[in-house]
Amino acid sequence: MIASEPTVDDYVSGVLAGNRAMLSRAVTLIESQSPRHEKKAQKVLQELLPHTGKAKRIGITGSPGVGKSTFIEAFGCYLITQNHSVAVLAIDPSSKASGGSILGDKTRMEDLSREPRAFIRPSPSGDTIGGVARRTRETILVCEAAGFDLILIESVGVGQSEVALRSMVDFFLLLLLPGAGDELQGIKRGIIEMADDIIVNKADGENRQRAEQSRLEQQASLSFLQPATPGWKTEASLCSARTGEGVPQVWQRIERFFHELEPTGIIAKRRQQQTVEWLTDLIRDELQRRFDNHPRVQVRLPVLREAVLRGETTAVSAAHTLLAEWGGSQEN
Amino acid sequence: MIASEPTVDDYVSGVLAGNRAMLSRAVTLIESQSPRHEKKAQKVLQELLPHTGKAKRIGITGSPGVGKSTFIEAFGCYLITQNHSVAVLAIDPSSKASGGSILGDKTRMEDLSREPRAFIRPSPSGDTIGGVARRTRETILVCEAAGFDLILIESVGVGQSEVALRSMVDFFLLLLLPGAGDELQGIKRGIIEMADDIIVNKADGENRQRAEQSRLEQQASLSFLQPATPGWKTEASLCSARTGEGVPQVWQRIERFFHELEPTGIIAKRRQQQTVEWLTDLIRDELQRRFDNHPRVQVRLPVLREAVLRGETTAVSAAHTLLAEWGGSQEN
Repeated sequence: MIASEPTVDDYVSGVLAGNRAMLSRAVTLIESQSPRHEKKAQKVLQELLPHTGKAKRIGITGSPGVGKSTFIEAFGCYLITQNHSVAVLAIDPSSKASGGSILGDKTRMEDLSREPRAFIRPSPSGDTIGGVARRTRETILVCEAAGFDLILIESVGVGQSEVALRSMVDFFLLLLLPGAGDELQGIKRGIIEMADDIIVNKADGENRQRAEQSRLEQQASLSFLQPATPGWKTEASLCSARTGEGVPQVWQRIERFFHELEPTGIIAKRRQQQTVEWLTDLIRDELQRRFDNHPRVQVRLPVLREAVLRGETTAVSAAHTLLAEWGGSQEN
Repeated sequence: MIASEPTVDDYVSGVLAGNRAMLSRAVTLIESQSPRHEKKAQKVLQELLPHTGKAKRIGITGSPGVGKSTFIEAFGCYLITQNHSVAVLAIDPSSKASGGSILGDKTRMEDLSREPRAFIRPSPSGDTIGGVARRTRETILVCEAAGFDLILIESVGVGQSEVALRSMVDFFLLLLLPGAGDELQGIKRGIIEMADDIIVNKADGENRQRAEQSRLEQQASLSFLQPATPGWKTEASLCSARTGEGVPQVWQRIERFFHELEPTGIIAKRRQQQTVEWLTDLIRDELQRRFDNHPRVQVRLPVLREAVLRGETTAVSAAHTLLAEWGGSQEN
């Protein structure tokens, strides 16, 4: 990029005009880890902020093999026939390594990626879920400023990424396989508790009966749980992303969710909470990062941790020692 | 205490000799918030450390009204007939205010408090669960050094205290009432997931049938959950602390738990994890405390949070600003 690095104004006007190339470059700017780019990205975001917040933010999760790629393709294409514009993002720090994320491989969503009113962006690189989540949150804002009215954000369904995903979406959708129990699918109870909609995918052909069985089991177990969103009853449904059966019904439920809950203010309240939590998380992570990166702490922490484990010193003593070495000047 | 403030040696030798008065004073020293006492307490703990870790640590939780007081009294008295010595502690930051903790009112455990081989200590005062949990952890160590072989730690069953309690015990016991649903009892799903044993208390007289019904429901719902301790199957049982029925069986299950799992190393591994988590938590809490108490942060944080909520600035920008004001010198 020797010739023309866009200015802040270039980015802002390009994104607001819905210029696809400039949107891509703005997201790349956000994903950059260089401090200079970070400053510029913050300026761009600052300008775009008044134009954000109008999209519906939908999280989609499920274990590898559940057919998320096929589902998002079918769902996204359906939404476009309904005159929506759709941005598809991902949150998955390990996607490159594990190959778990469908979005690392755009070619698997061929139809959707050819749609002019769709924008597909793979997972940003990054080691920590915090770093990836931060960039995904900012990418949501940029896509909203570019005029997309639906943002689908995918996570790979293993580990911490669902919690991070839940904290940035309005509606949270969990895909399951027919037949296999939750544990076999690597689905933790806590993830089911976060879901606003549970979909048993691949409910076609010979799978149909097993899928209905799974749906009934999920429906029964939901009665033991508190709803993920107050005022909304999470239900379990069938879908076949391959044949398209059940896909429109997913969208109908999401529309009903917004139709019923937006007037109650609960969605706006959740977004406010999410924003405050984001600020709190950013500060906590940065405090921890500064501590962990301190040269003395890096030397002493492993030693003191071992001493605590061997019962030679208390955790409180070890913490005192480390914090004193880190910076007595910060004490107050 | 004008005449004789004990020395570190006084505390250490007194506690190791099982001197009840010195044990009480050592716990008071630990609970003190004065920096001078804190230093002394750390010295005492350091000396006692080699004599800790041999007791079984048992957490007991349940909503107010479930009969925890009566249960702990009955259970503790039974344990003493079995030649055990029992320390009863509490973790509940709000106990003084809410009156929720049974241990604020020792007179409600009259029989147990008269036992020479029992030591009952009410909740330490403190506003934050972190502060209370820290003092309770240290009190566990002192009681172990004093020779108690069973430590029962009670939490009031509402809020965050169960998570803190789970993080300091080997075995976690949840008391429920007959009849009322989990939600009515204020029991969150996550608490049931942490339990190694579920006991429907007050299973006597007219309640008996409803209690059995509740037990069956709990047993059924447990099949949807992953076990709190790998290799152990959590079960739901009946008990009447009033009549004493079922109390010995609670202890039999706990004994079986240790008998079966100690050889696998899972209990030792959990304790190691708990110790490392404790160190990590102490550091994180102290970093946050230093940040929150900084005068500039106290002025600017509310202003910037409002700006973020109104969409005038991004969370990332606000976090940068606050961290820069807090201490650029700490940046690395």
